[in-house]
Amino acid sequence: MDERAYFERLDSTASDPAELFEHFEQRSVGGRTTHVLPSARHGIERGTVILDAADAIVRGYPSIPRVLALDAGVTSFFESGESIFAEEKLDGFNVRVADVGDEGPLAFTRGGYVCPYTTARVRDLLDLGEFFATHPEMMLCAELIGPETPYTTHDYAEVDSDAIRVFDVRDRESAVPLAVSERRELCVRYDFPQPRLFGRYDRSEATEEIWSAIEELDADGREGVVMKTADSDSMVKYTTESKHHDELADAFSLPFDLGRDFVFSRITREVFQAAEFDESDERLRERAHDLGESILLPAVETVRRIESGETVGQRHRVRGGHDDIDALLDHLRDLSLTIEVEADYRENGQRVVEFLKVAESTVDRTTYYLEGGTYDE
Amino acid sequence: MDERAYFERLDSTASDPAELFEHFEQRSVGGRTTHVLPSARHGIERGTVILDAADAIVRGYPSIPRVLALDAGVTSFFESGESIFAEEKLDGFNVRVADVGDEGPLAFTRGGYVCPYTTARVRDLLDLGEFFATHPEMMLCAELIGPETPYTTHDYAEVDSDAIRVFDVRDRESAVPLAVSERRELCVRYDFPQPRLFGRYDRSEATEEIWSAIEELDADGREGVVMKTADSDSMVKYTTESKHHDELADAFSLPFDLGRDFVFSRITREVFQAAEFDESDERLRERAHDLGESILLPAVETVRRIESGETVGQRHRVRGGHDDIDALLDHLRDLSLTIEVEADYRENGQRVVEFLKVAESTVDRTTYYLEGGTYDE
Repeated sequence: MDERAYFERLDSTASDPAELFEHFEQRSVGGRTTHVLPSARHGIERGTVILDAADAIVRGYPSIPRVLALDAGVTSFFESGESIFAEEKLDGFNVRVADVGDEGPLAFTRGGYVCPYTTARVRDLLDLGEFFATHPEMMLCAELIGPETPYTTHDYAEVDSDAIRVFDVRDRESAVPLAVSERRELCVRYDFPQPRLFGRYDRSEATEEIWSAIEELDADGREGVVMKTADSDSMVKYTTESKHHDELADAFSLPFDLGRDFVFSRITREVFQAAEFDESDERLRERAHDLGESILLPAVETVRRIESGETVGQRHRVRGGHDDIDALLDHLRDLSLTIEVEADYRENGQRVVEFLKVAESTVDRTTYYLEGGTYDE
Repeated sequence: MDERAYFERLDSTASDPAELFEHFEQRSVGGRTTHVLPSARHGIERGTVILDAADAIVRGYPSIPRVLALDAGVTSFFESGESIFAEEKLDGFNVRVADVGDEGPLAFTRGGYVCPYTTARVRDLLDLGEFFATHPEMMLCAELIGPETPYTTHDYAEVDSDAIRVFDVRDRESAVPLAVSERRELCVRYDFPQPRLFGRYDRSEATEEIWSAIEELDADGREGVVMKTADSDSMVKYTTESKHHDELADAFSLPFDLGRDFVFSRITREVFQAAEFDESDERLRERAHDLGESILLPAVETVRRIESGETVGQRHRVRGGHDDIDALLDHLRDLSLTIEVEADYRENGQRVVEFLKVAESTVDRTTYYLEGGTYDE
């Protein structure tokens, strides 16, 4: 690979190619060689992929900063007089869809892998041919949502199995996004489903409007809001109480796999939201009780399940073509996950597979403690 | 210092003096030069101190392992037929008192520092002269408890200001403990107050007896139990729900100083205790609500205090001689703590000082978020 040429195209903050490319790792999957940046470096996003054979760059999706204090965050993050677009943030699996090489469009995960299952789903759910014929230089940034995905299982009233929402469209090589209005029109034109737009607000009214959106989303058990400048170049997120509690409940159903990493940050979000918006002691206490239940109840259930001999982990159901699902299971095993297939059948002409991603640490640590194992502090 | 000679005396698992002594650090405080092991290495306890001028070794107090599942822990930790002594574990400040050199007995902290305040307190509260005249090779392992100490503030009904409890007596150089009965008799002989002995149990009855002790301690807001073999050589601890919740409440009153490190381990203790002993859903939910309140309420209060301009931290009140208290404040500042003296007056012939250990991280991070600061995930 011509590092000098890619270095010029990537326009990073590194001072020479070696400084940047020492952080890339080469991966060969399914006859495809990629160079991937596994974590953000020198101004280049995590998951940025170089496909040398196609002479193509697919930039990673940037990490969206979060505010903990909504009103102060809105005021400090946006300029006075600037419009703030608020769109719904969905709880799903973030992929970038790009048409590189001659295999047809591919779905790249946050970590820079090509997911064969999501690739098949986006090809099925979106009319990509027409879009990429006109916009070969673009990538669609999309969320795979719904109860039947291999990664997330959050239920949306409007999604039976799975669905795609396009929330950003960017230049694949420079990562420059389309402006919000332009992107939303483009998605309408190509019939790409997109997340709800709550509105375009002046900074002075934004907190009130966004808090009201958050309350509505919270009541429906939905995740939160992304606020963007009109050019889509700056964005910041804010999430609901129910999202925090759901994440804690998921994490503490597998405490030694997810609990440790999740707990402090989610509690912190709760603390600042409560300090800003919980006006009565009663409201605050109710939030505290829900928080405690989110942490303790799933963890106790998991301990009891393991005690009775069950294997625990994350359960998923996926449906699609026979080979797409084989490719998915191979992909997950390549990522070193332990997969137990619990059901594999056909329904309405499709293959349906239910599987468990085994939570090895939770099973091992819990068993150790249940057998009387000690830990030293 | 003659490393070879100390190496032989320490009887570590290191293969040569260099391998062991590279982990020691030299400290000079108040004209006293010590070599201290800041964390456990090669079978030698954290806080082990060598005082070369006195040709003395003061071994650290070992970290006591903890069981999460009481019944399984008792069964796997102790041998069948072995007696198990259960003593109360107190919530205070652990020191070792040793008579080395010609300054009189000194109180060494867990980290291997000499605390001038605790030294003054143990000299005042215990009749050390007679003890060390007979047992110069021993060290007293003691807990400084009560609401008026510079380190902990836990209230005990029986302690007005502060008090000492001797819970172990060991050979200062080999760390070999006296047997439980022998130590308890010795403490009676020298009139050293000691923690409560719940009893001596056969392994088959221990869980039931200890759980009943835990329930009694929990109702009184006390910490827990240490179980020991008769020779005191093996020990394991188990703590109450109220202790877990109190610790979380303390930690989350200063979330960015203490919360992050404390939260996961305390939740884990709660989870296993609940899985073992919370028989009804109602009891489990009550524990969950208390857990949630312990986490959320103090943290929200702290955020609101910082928002209104207060400085937060740990508040302590100490009383003693004028110079002892000066030495304490110097000692704390030497440890890089930020100390704000809030009151300094005389009462019943003693100097009383109230001070705040400022929680710098909590003040800084909270202020940053309250001003709209973002974090990137």
